[in-house]
Amino acid sequence: MSKEITSRSENYSQWYNDIVIKAGLADYSAVRGCMVIKPYGYAIWEKMQRQLDTMFKETGHQNAYFPLFVPKSFFSREASHVEGFAKECAVVTHYRLKNDPNGQGVVVDNDAKLEEELIVRPTSETIIWNTYKGWIQSYRDLPILINQWANVVRWEMRTRLFLRTAEFLWQEGHTAHATKEEAIAEAEKMIGVYADFAQKWMAMPVRVGRKSESERFAGAIDTYSIEAMMQDGRALQSGTSHFLGQNFAKAFDVKFINRDSELDYVWATSWGVSTRLMGALVMVHSDDNGLVLPPKLAPTQVVFVPIYKGADELEQISARVAALREELHKRGITTHYDDRDNYKPGFKFNEYEMKGYPVRVAIGARDMQNGTAEVARRDTLTKQIVPQEQLADTVAALLDDIQQNLFNRALEFREQNTTVVNSYDEFKEVLNTKGGFVLAHWDGTAETEQRIKEETKATVRCIPFDLEPEEGRCIYSGKPSKQRAIFALAY
Amino acid sequence: MSKEITSRSENYSQWYNDIVIKAGLADYSAVRGCMVIKPYGYAIWEKMQRQLDTMFKETGHQNAYFPLFVPKSFFSREASHVEGFAKECAVVTHYRLKNDPNGQGVVVDNDAKLEEELIVRPTSETIIWNTYKGWIQSYRDLPILINQWANVVRWEMRTRLFLRTAEFLWQEGHTAHATKEEAIAEAEKMIGVYADFAQKWMAMPVRVGRKSESERFAGAIDTYSIEAMMQDGRALQSGTSHFLGQNFAKAFDVKFINRDSELDYVWATSWGVSTRLMGALVMVHSDDNGLVLPPKLAPTQVVFVPIYKGADELEQISARVAALREELHKRGITTHYDDRDNYKPGFKFNEYEMKGYPVRVAIGARDMQNGTAEVARRDTLTKQIVPQEQLADTVAALLDDIQQNLFNRALEFREQNTTVVNSYDEFKEVLNTKGGFVLAHWDGTAETEQRIKEETKATVRCIPFDLEPEEGRCIYSGKPSKQRAIFALAY
Repeated sequence: MSKEITSRSENYSQWYNDIVIKAGLADYSAVRGCMVIKPYGYAIWEKMQRQLDTMFKETGHQNAYFPLFVPKSFFSREASHVEGFAKECAVVTHYRLKNDPNGQGVVVDNDAKLEEELIVRPTSETIIWNTYKGWIQSYRDLPILINQWANVVRWEMRTRLFLRTAEFLWQEGHTAHATKEEAIAEAEKMIGVYADFAQKWMAMPVRVGRKSESERFAGAIDTYSIEAMMQDGRALQSGTSHFLGQNFAKAFDVKFINRDSELDYVWATSWGVSTRLMGALVMVHSDDNGLVLPPKLAPTQVVFVPIYKGADELEQISARVAALREELHKRGITTHYDDRDNYKPGFKFNEYEMKGYPVRVAIGARDMQNGTAEVARRDTLTKQIVPQEQLADTVAALLDDIQQNLFNRALEFREQNTTVVNSYDEFKEVLNTKGGFVLAHWDGTAETEQRIKEETKATVRCIPFDLEPEEGRCIYSGKPSKQRAIFALAY
Repeated sequence: MSKEITSRSENYSQWYNDIVIKAGLADYSAVRGCMVIKPYGYAIWEKMQRQLDTMFKETGHQNAYFPLFVPKSFFSREASHVEGFAKECAVVTHYRLKNDPNGQGVVVDNDAKLEEELIVRPTSETIIWNTYKGWIQSYRDLPILINQWANVVRWEMRTRLFLRTAEFLWQEGHTAHATKEEAIAEAEKMIGVYADFAQKWMAMPVRVGRKSESERFAGAIDTYSIEAMMQDGRALQSGTSHFLGQNFAKAFDVKFINRDSELDYVWATSWGVSTRLMGALVMVHSDDNGLVLPPKLAPTQVVFVPIYKGADELEQISARVAALREELHKRGITTHYDDRDNYKPGFKFNEYEMKGYPVRVAIGARDMQNGTAEVARRDTLTKQIVPQEQLADTVAALLDDIQQNLFNRALEFREQNTTVVNSYDEFKEVLNTKGGFVLAHWDGTAETEQRIKEETKATVRCIPFDLEPEEGRCIYSGKPSKQRAIFALAY
């Protein structure tokens, strides 16, 4: 089955698409740029959602739901929001169909034209801040810490499964605060939650930092992001958190009486991650045999495959497997037993390799005699023979080890592909040969960033929080710089 | 606070709206017919979702996600679907905005007109069956048992919070089967799951039965529904499950090789419940003091309110409450401690009554001396003094009792308001005075049903499964009838 996949070295982009399709994560749909998330892909997304949702609630947030549609005029309220935000949106202009008078199915009823067009939300700051206006009078009503799980639509011209689709699923947090300091602390806290989730659950190392002005969210004072490195060395922005200042409060006239009995505008943040994380998960760990999943996000962690001749052997193996699975379930490990008799073990092995099941346990007649099982791990594709009585211990330890190994492997790859450069020639040389993250001094201006982008396609991914300030000179303009930024080609 | 609510006897409809707004379940939005589901309302919906999702998975279903948009032409494929389905849909005609040349914000970019309009899904049979076509070749690919949690839009002219909104949240199951019998069994199984959920979790008794032809889902061969009685005697259809025959498979050309190696069309079902259940939940249990929630769906089951003078008393009470809450948490009971010092106990009592917290525990200085607590139950508004050492036992039993009592109370109300009639005069008399469910013989024709509806506004809610066949004569036409149907005014 792995022969069905293009190798990474042959065509990285095709390799990615092959895995998404052949592992059964998603499918193309009849609607341009919209995808179908298939059950196996959705099960992974559900595990991500469940964990993120828990982390949001542990940090004091509640879920709510706001309308899918935003009145067109709302987009004009916050000047930099409308200016900076892509205007590729789905526009609803009518609210009724009617039978075609010529008998050709249905047509749009032109009598049912909306007075004001509605936009399918590309993000919800405007509709939410218009709502918050009615909820906030005093500092006692603050903070508001709300998250929404929703679908959004951005009419992308070039789409790719999970990475860039017209419709995608995401969560968007929208918080309101009485002070600037509290809002900034919230935005920082949430980028920290995202980094934690990426590293501990997705086993995906990320660089956390501040976006440059030109890469900021439209309407934000500051945008923080987590940036991960894919196996082709490109960066993938995996989550963002925005300090919005009082911009949206001013646009929607949301004032409150503060502790000093003065009227002031409310401070805001917003933050989100999307099904794009699915794309990152695929690209960061998988190999030429198919999907590789970190055990914490695998819908099923262990698959059992019987190797047998005849019904008697199968029956004996099945009874043993049932007992072994029960032991694993007691430890909270999820399992599947594939006793389909119309497929051979080799076919099944390939299938579970393709789908990235972290651990495979095969048990045959000889294993039954010896009281053993063959345990294979997906990350390294290595096998070991294990006494059945030690299986639960071994598998539990193995799952932890796989989770850690995937993280270490990705981290090592990122470190090997992160280069410090001190001249523009060196910068271009690294981008053209090795790729990856390039740490370079930059004068901080949008103009320089734009020129570098035009000449090399590389952009400032972020100014990482964990990098100490360091005096230097911009590799492009030669002007003074206080800190290196991460440059990279990006998805 | 209860004075803020209109009483049921004064204006039932206004009473309902008052509770939804004042208990903080939902709010109106800037978009006509679309609502905001507020955190407290969403927390109840999440509990419903979590339980339904568990029940769907226990019956072998998986979640997936299909596009928000449906190409207009898809609606013309299944003739009765397009004919019967309301054509009030949100129609996307353009995919870009642009800056207004006159500087007045943004306008629709007329250069960005879609070749074919997209409809925001009012339901997803068409887009899903178009997708299934690519997934099904042989009986080995069947059954497909998929559910989707999603938002849908139906452009209703008259909307009411939760009960009828332009956008609403729901789940829609869409299954594909190799045989007619299997599909029918699936449709029946899922209406059973809904009935179970309504009765065991919502504490809401329902009548389960078959819809009349004119009330069937557009494109279905048979529609089953659960019907609940609200406190004004009206019926609320709370969930439906459809046996779709081969209609959608034929419309989208979905054939498979069956076990006899013959090419045949696939058999289908679909089934759904929506945020409308929130409306049912409010209307079935609440009273003139506010919301009443069954403990199994209450976001927080027990609230503790301290009654104190001065910081010392508060400190002592708080320490005791912490220990008591811990005991409850060990039993899986959710609690909240309201020690806000800027509100008086009476204000708090009203607030939790309004929000329907099932149990309230108040502890004051005298309780501390006596080792007691005052326990109040929301359903009956009665109180008892309980020794603190018995509090956990008492509260646990009380929550079970409240859950059962709410069901019993609603069942008794329904039974008292269900009337068997044998003539049309009697039928009209009951509808005009007592209301409720009326069990009457009906000749089974759409014509008679239509006339009765025109004359009395009552509709056939369902032909209940649990009613034994019984020979009789239609109350309207006098023609022979084999079974009584439930007639009622409905939401």
